Amino acid sequence: MSDVGEGRRARGGGAARRAERTAVRIECAKFIERNIPNLEILNEEALQIIEYNAETVLEEIGVNFVENPAALDRWRDAGADVQGERVRIPRGLARELCKSAPASYVQHARNPERNVTVGGRGLVLAPVYGPPFVRDEGGRRYATIEDFQKFVKLGYMSKWLHHSGGTVCEPTDVPVNKRHLDMLLAHMTLSDKPYMGSVTEPVRAQDSVEMSDILFGGLDGRTVMTSLININSPLTFDGIMMGALEVYAKANQAAIISPFIVGGAMAPVTVAGTLTQVLAEVLAGVAYSQLIRKGAPVIAGAFVTSIDMNSGAPTFGTPEASHVTYGVGQLVRRLGIPYRSAGGFTGSKVPDAQAAYESANSLNMGLLSGVNFMLHACGWLEGGLVSSFEKFVMDADQLGILHHLAAGIDVSENGQAMDAIREVGPGGHYLGCAHTQANFKQAFWRTNLLDYKPYETWEEEGARDTVQLARERVARMLADYQKPAIDPAIEEALLEYVAKKKASMPDAFM
Amino acid sequence: MSDVGEGRRARGGGAARRAERTAVRIECAKFIERNIPNLEILNEEALQIIEYNAETVLEEIGVNFVENPAALDRWRDAGADVQGERVRIPRGLARELCKSAPASYVQHARNPERNVTVGGRGLVLAPVYGPPFVRDEGGRRYATIEDFQKFVKLGYMSKWLHHSGGTVCEPTDVPVNKRHLDMLLAHMTLSDKPYMGSVTEPVRAQDSVEMSDILFGGLDGRTVMTSLININSPLTFDGIMMGALEVYAKANQAAIISPFIVGGAMAPVTVAGTLTQVLAEVLAGVAYSQLIRKGAPVIAGAFVTSIDMNSGAPTFGTPEASHVTYGVGQLVRRLGIPYRSAGGFTGSKVPDAQAAYESANSLNMGLLSGVNFMLHACGWLEGGLVSSFEKFVMDADQLGILHHLAAGIDVSENGQAMDAIREVGPGGHYLGCAHTQANFKQAFWRTNLLDYKPYETWEEEGARDTVQLARERVARMLADYQKPAIDPAIEEALLEYVAKKKASMPDAFM
Repeated sequence: MSDVGEGRRARGGGAARRAERTAVRIECAKFIERNIPNLEILNEEALQIIEYNAETVLEEIGVNFVENPAALDRWRDAGADVQGERVRIPRGLARELCKSAPASYVQHARNPERNVTVGGRGLVLAPVYGPPFVRDEGGRRYATIEDFQKFVKLGYMSKWLHHSGGTVCEPTDVPVNKRHLDMLLAHMTLSDKPYMGSVTEPVRAQDSVEMSDILFGGLDGRTVMTSLININSPLTFDGIMMGALEVYAKANQAAIISPFIVGGAMAPVTVAGTLTQVLAEVLAGVAYSQLIRKGAPVIAGAFVTSIDMNSGAPTFGTPEASHVTYGVGQLVRRLGIPYRSAGGFTGSKVPDAQAAYESANSLNMGLLSGVNFMLHACGWLEGGLVSSFEKFVMDADQLGILHHLAAGIDVSENGQAMDAIREVGPGGHYLGCAHTQANFKQAFWRTNLLDYKPYETWEEEGARDTVQLARERVARMLADYQKPAIDPAIEEALLEYVAKKKASMPDAFM
Repeated sequence: MSDVGEGRRARGGGAARRAERTAVRIECAKFIERNIPNLEILNEEALQIIEYNAETVLEEIGVNFVENPAALDRWRDAGADVQGERVRIPRGLARELCKSAPASYVQHARNPERNVTVGGRGLVLAPVYGPPFVRDEGGRRYATIEDFQKFVKLGYMSKWLHHSGGTVCEPTDVPVNKRHLDMLLAHMTLSDKPYMGSVTEPVRAQDSVEMSDILFGGLDGRTVMTSLININSPLTFDGIMMGALEVYAKANQAAIISPFIVGGAMAPVTVAGTLTQVLAEVLAGVAYSQLIRKGAPVIAGAFVTSIDMNSGAPTFGTPEASHVTYGVGQLVRRLGIPYRSAGGFTGSKVPDAQAAYESANSLNMGLLSGVNFMLHACGWLEGGLVSSFEKFVMDADQLGILHHLAAGIDVSENGQAMDAIREVGPGGHYLGCAHTQANFKQAFWRTNLLDYKPYETWEEEGARDTVQLARERVARMLADYQKPAIDPAIEEALLEYVAKKKASMPDAFM
């Protein structure tokens, strides 16, 4: 594919250039630029109904900004009706405020070839975020910083993954108040792809900004992080998350403003009702980001799952989650800001057929719903409780399919292949013809993981299933991994920052 | 869902009514009626280029009708240029002839509640067709008539499957020249869903018509079979398949006229080239059906796979196959006839994650490409060499997702859920609210197979993966199976027909 570039290594001094000469070059696709349409599931009338209702929700019911007096002041100044922590937003105000949010933005990576554009017809893929557990051949266990580093390495080496992500798993062996430092250090030094900042406390967001400043040798106004700001649905914005948003918006760093929706629990049990609530939440959240700083880059998000009404478990890859994701995509495009949703979701405990059905349903829907930033694109297992090494490389392989699908159909003269059809004629065979020879290398997506072998070969080689193939691939990738070059002075400064911060406070595990 | 009806049993005499009273009622969904748009991947200009090129192929290169002098005569009479077996069709002629093919047709089932409408915005789902092998807990082995009967039973009991299909596996223990009789008998007596006829010889197509005539107590012009007529790509129509088509068209029975495309082998390696050839083949094939009998019901089909250029193996669930399937859908809709494509395809040897990723990719694409008749919707394994019992129920469960996706988004007042949003308010919870209580039973699709249990429960119960759950479901379904009621006189007549036919010729195994 033409959008695959060999990565050049970081800019920097002589040491970096020396490291460059010996480093292994990693093949990495640029972010996806869609050349196919989105699936527009709602018609104009339905869109207008939902947009009208969302404004009604903001005006009549309002949203809560809790433990955040400054936010209440900002809303009051902007013209909202504030009573206690309840903010009622006059019809049209939030949408008006959203207009200053950029339609797209560039997130810079320390290797400029890994910069991504978020928005428009683009799609940026980032790995799983948040699980406290990992699963590998030994089963399920609490995640450690070593696991975290392995996931960052796998992400760095994954051709179809554009982004290193954030909390690829929770390093539970590191104190809660120091975790973010080790996580950032891993993303910054073990990969050269773009990454996410910490959101668990405003001071940790500030650390993220300061470490990024070191890594990039001064930010100069560049956006170098996209971080995840969850809304507490229904209709609640907590002080900690908003505090992190405030830090990032002021520093021109991007935030995904995203309700975490379990349909039937945190949102109405019907799709149109969920769409209404999500739109109201996104309008209020994005508008608030613009009250902090006009023009701050934001993504309107929606994490969507439905609930199994028998067990109360969240479910994934379901048609209702797809309906919501398609619908939110349309609503967000009409707002003119980038859209985050979907991922390689599953409720399965193991990377089996259930995991793959559910993930494929979600990934396909994510592409066709016009998502611009897809978190959880690979490695997600057990409803987000587990980061799976095997599933990471399984999903990452499937992401190549999204790239090829998005490229659309070439109807150039070469694509039309009339000479080939003439050459082969009725009853002939295309394998040997000139057009096939000239095009076959680029013609078809090819897996780096799945089995295409003849039955007999497959059986002789041990009749391996996908999990076994994936396990072997993980081991091979980690064995082959080489750290991308980094200016030793910068790495030194980062290590020093982390050490100093860690020494400045006692460990906290809550 | 409102489209799920309890099946009434066959019409018939007193014995049938007595059987009816004791029979277990099987829940079965009606065919899907889409309330969502198709994905239109080609723009108008691209469509016109391909349509123009397809006419060029028919006019300049032409198609071969081999070992079929009557077909050559028909084409000559219609105005084509016939030289040897090559038929060159003047620009526009084939498309003009296609106009008499109906835009949709009803395929009758012996239980009228199982009738399906093929065409329009409908989607009829039918199981895997053709594999010589089966796979179950014992591994892979040649299929037998007992396996065949089991698949028919599973299909009958599968809620989301509308059609009993045809050669659900090849019963290799029955002589080749008598197989079709036992297969038809199984579909006719073990299920009451619609079925397919034999196409391996024109006389076997004739047997299919005659047995159907017995089953239905006279066909009275009704279409009661949809049968699979493959085109030998590129651009070749063989005498045996066309002979079967002639039998069916004359009897007003429907045929799927379908090139079997392995991109890069039987069609150009580029998507637009493949679309051109497929359209040319479909135009010639459908036009020919109308030369046999104006108004004969037909489906324009495309079985699409790409080839792995490293190994030569056919590959499934790939983005290029999706491009072709989306594109053919648009071209066929412009012809105004029903469209057959997609299925639960995979190249995997076992029902693992690869099988599920590839199948989910294909099934989703099948829904969104506007397919009207989907063969191979469940049970397909190992590139179509194997019918898998486990995968049959795994895929059949996923077909429920297509039903719910296709239903679209309800924007009625109940769907909008404004009262629920008002009732719950910021920080509340929807589980207990009145709107949730009133709607939760119909709100979400729910699996009958996959695991949604808490981790601890799942582990205590043996940490079963999808294959194990599927194996247990297959055993349970076969244990629960009860034959649908049938008029004993009709069953007797069918058995007699089969016995007489079998006695009339020696066994042939080639």
